[in-house]
Amino acid sequence: MFEYMKGMIVEAQIDKIIVEVNGIGYRINSSINSASQVKIGQVSTLFTHFVLREDEAHLYGFVDKEELAMFKKLISVSKIGPKVAAGILSTYTPQRLGAYIVSNDAQAIAKSPGVGKKTAERMILELKDKIDDSQVEYDQNFFNHENKNNNEVVDALMALGYTKHEGEQAASAVRDTSLSTEEMIRKALNWLAR
Amino acid sequence: MFEYMKGMIVEAQIDKIIVEVNGIGYRINSSINSASQVKIGQVSTLFTHFVLREDEAHLYGFVDKEELAMFKKLISVSKIGPKVAAGILSTYTPQRLGAYIVSNDAQAIAKSPGVGKKTAERMILELKDKIDDSQVEYDQNFFNHENKNNNEVVDALMALGYTKHEGEQAASAVRDTSLSTEEMIRKALNWLAR
Amino acid sequence: MFEYMKGMIVEAQIDKIIVEVNGIGYRINSSINSASQVKIGQVSTLFTHFVLREDEAHLYGFVDKEELAMFKKLISVSKIGPKVAAGILSTYTPQRLGAYIVSNDAQAIAKSPGVGKKTAERMILELKDKIDDSQVEYDQNFFNHENKNNNEVVDALMALGYTKHEGEQAASAVRDTSLSTEEMIRKALNWLAR
Amino acid sequence: MFEYMKGMIVEAQIDKIIVEVNGIGYRINSSINSASQVKIGQVSTLFTHFVLREDEAHLYGFVDKEELAMFKKLISVSKIGPKVAAGILSTYTPQRLGAYIVSNDAQAIAKSPGVGKKTAERMILELKDKIDDSQVEYDQNFFNHENKNNNEVVDALMALGYTKHEGEQAASAVRDTSLSTEEMIRKALNWLAR
Repeated sequence: MFEYMKGMIVEAQIDKIIVEVNGIGYRINSSINSASQVKIGQVSTLFTHFVLREDEAHLYGFVDKEELAMFKKLISVSKIGPKVAAGILSTYTPQRLGAYIVSNDAQAIAKSPGVGKKTAERMILELKDKIDDSQVEYDQNFFNHENKNNNEVVDALMALGYTKHEGEQAASAVRDTSLSTEEMIRKALNWLAR
Repeated sequence: MFEYMKGMIVEAQIDKIIVEVNGIGYRINSSINSASQVKIGQVSTLFTHFVLREDEAHLYGFVDKEELAMFKKLISVSKIGPKVAAGILSTYTPQRLGAYIVSNDAQAIAKSPGVGKKTAERMILELKDKIDDSQVEYDQNFFNHENKNNNEVVDALMALGYTKHEGEQAASAVRDTSLSTEEMIRKALNWLAR
Repeated sequence: MFEYMKGMIVEAQIDKIIVEVNGIGYRINSSINSASQVKIGQVSTLFTHFVLREDEAHLYGFVDKEELAMFKKLISVSKIGPKVAAGILSTYTPQRLGAYIVSNDAQAIAKSPGVGKKTAERMILELKDKIDDSQVEYDQNFFNHENKNNNEVVDALMALGYTKHEGEQAASAVRDTSLSTEEMIRKALNWLAR
Repeated sequence: MFEYMKGMIVEAQIDKIIVEVNGIGYRINSSINSASQVKIGQVSTLFTHFVLREDEAHLYGFVDKEELAMFKKLISVSKIGPKVAAGILSTYTPQRLGAYIVSNDAQAIAKSPGVGKKTAERMILELKDKIDDSQVEYDQNFFNHENKNNNEVVDALMALGYTKHEGEQAASAVRDTSLSTEEMIRKALNWLAR
C-alpha cells in the first residue's frame, strides 16, 4: 500500500530511520546500508514495504529500489522474516548478496545475523534463478580465489581434451565457492557429459 | 474508508498506479484501462477500494466511478478476488463486460486472466440483474451477429402468427449469444406461452 | 484513534459523507441527521469512530459530539452493530432517542430500521441509566399524552389520600409510556408502599 | 510505525490528548504527567506507540522519550496492558517509578490503579535490570528513611569488623525498602560472605 515515504530525515540508526512526513514521524525499519546514506535534516525518499500482522504494523524502507527488491526477495524465502532480511542487508549490499547467492556461497551468507547454514542454503535454492546476474557484484578476493579455481578447472578440462571455450563454459556453469577445485572438475565433467 | 486518492501520478504500469499524496507514494492496484488514462506528472483522482486482510492491506483504484462500481460488483461474486477482478477490467471496459454479462456471454468473459467457464457463469448468474442495461456497450460484431440472430427469430415468430412487436419483445427477452437461432426460437415460444 | 476529521465536504448522502482531507477522500458512514447538516464545498468537522475488523476498516462520523456519544452508547449494546446504530440515528435525533430510552418506549425505538422489540428492550435495559436526563427531548405529542396520563395518576393518588407532591413524585418515578393509566396507578401505589 | 505525532493540541484530559495533524484529530491515550505538560492551542510533539489488535487500533503517546521508554518497558511485562501502563504513569513519573523498581518497593508500585502486589512484584522481577540507575529519582522521605536504614546497616557491619567501604557496598547491594534493618544486615552479611 505504501510504495515510498518522502520527508525530512529526523533520525538514522543502524536499524531504523525516522522520517517526518506532514507532522507525523514514521519509524522505518532499515539497514546500515540505507541508514548510512541518508542525512539528518535533509528530505529523502525511502522505498517502503508495509508489514501488517494481527497485532503489529511496521514499515521497512530503503534508499533505493534495488535494496527494496532484494528485501522482498529475502522475505519470500520461508523462515526469513523482515527483521532477519533487514539484518542481512545490514551485512551485505544487495549486489554483494546477489553474488553470493548465484555462486552458492552459503558460508558467506551465513555470516549475517540470524542466518544459519540451512537458511543460507534455502535462500540460495529459492532465489538463485531470481537474481539478475548483471546486477551482482563479486568482492575482490572472491575474484582472485574464484579466478584461481576457475583457471585450474579450465586447465584440467583442456588437459582432458576439451577446448578452452568448453572448459570455461563448464567452469562457469558449476561455479560454487564452497567446492574444492577437484569437486568442481568432477562437477564440470558431469555437466559436459550431461 | 478511502473513497478516493487525489495526487500526482508518479508511475503507471499495467497493473498498478503510484500516486503521491502529501509526500506518501501510495501503490494503487489498478487496470490497464485506468493506467492508460493517467499521465505521469499530472494530478489525478483515483476512486479507491481498501482491501484489508489479517496480514495485508492493499488499495485498488480506478479513474472513474463506473470502473470502481464494476470492480466492487466483481469482488462480490464468490471466488473472484480483487486481483482477478482487476485482471478482468484490464481485459474489458466495465461497459463491455456489462454487455457480456447481460447477454450471458460466458465464453467472452472466460477470456479474462484467471477466469474459467464456471467462474464466468457464476458471475453472470450473480450479476445479471445488477447490471444497468443503459450502461452496457455491445461490441460491433456482437451487434451484427446479434441482429442477424434477432431478425431470424422475429421472422420465425411472425411466420407463426405473432405480430412484429410480440416477436421483438420475445427475442429481446430471451437474448442469449450462447444459443443457436433454433434454440432462441423455442425459448421465445415458451416465453410467449408463459 | 481518529477523534475527528476536518476537511471539505465533497458528497453527502443519507448514510455517508465524503470529506476530503489533504487530497484523500474519506468515506464517513453517518446518519441523515448529520448528512443534512453539512454543506458540499464547505469545511466541516466530523467527530469519528474507527471500526476495525479482521478484513474491514470503516469510519463512522457525526456533526456533533452528542450524536457520536449516543452512537458509541448504541454500539455498546450487544447485537447492535455500527450500521444499525447509524440507522437508528437516521430515524431519531440523539435527544429524542434518549427520551424514548428513559421513558421505556420500546415501541417507538423499534420503528428504527433493523431494530426489533427485543433489541429495543435490551437497549432500554442497558442504556437507561447511562442517559443524561437533561439532554433528552420529548416529542410534543409525547408531552400531551404523557401529561394527560400523569395528571390522571396524580388525581387518583390524591383521591386515595396522598398529597399532590407525593402523587407527582410517584407518577414521575414510574413513568412508562407503554403502560395504561390504570397500570401506572397500581405501579405508583406499589412504589409509594415500598 | 508512528514514532511521533507533531500537531496542535486541541484537548488534554487526564487520560488522553487530542492532537490535530493536517486536519485529522488523533486521539492519543496518555498520562496525567504528559497531559499536564501540554498547552491547548500550541504545537507539541508526542512520542507515540501504536497498539493494533484484531478489532482495535489505538495510539499511546507521551511528551518525552523517557516516559515512552518506560511505557514500553511496562507493557513488556506480562499482564500489564497499555491502559494499566498509562495508569501507572499517571501515578508516578518514569523516574520515580524507576526508583521503586530498583529498590524493590512493590508496595509503592501497587498503589497504581489496576496494579496488585503480584503484578508489582512481577514488574520488579522483569524490569529491575532494565532500569538505568542514573535515571531514577528517589522521593524525599524515601531518602531519609533509606539513609537511616543504610547507616544502621553500615554501623552494624563495621561493628562486625568490616571496613566502612565494605559496609556501604553491601548495604547498597541489598537495598530493599520492604525489609527491616535486621533483615538487611543479615542479607548484607550473606552478600559479603558470597
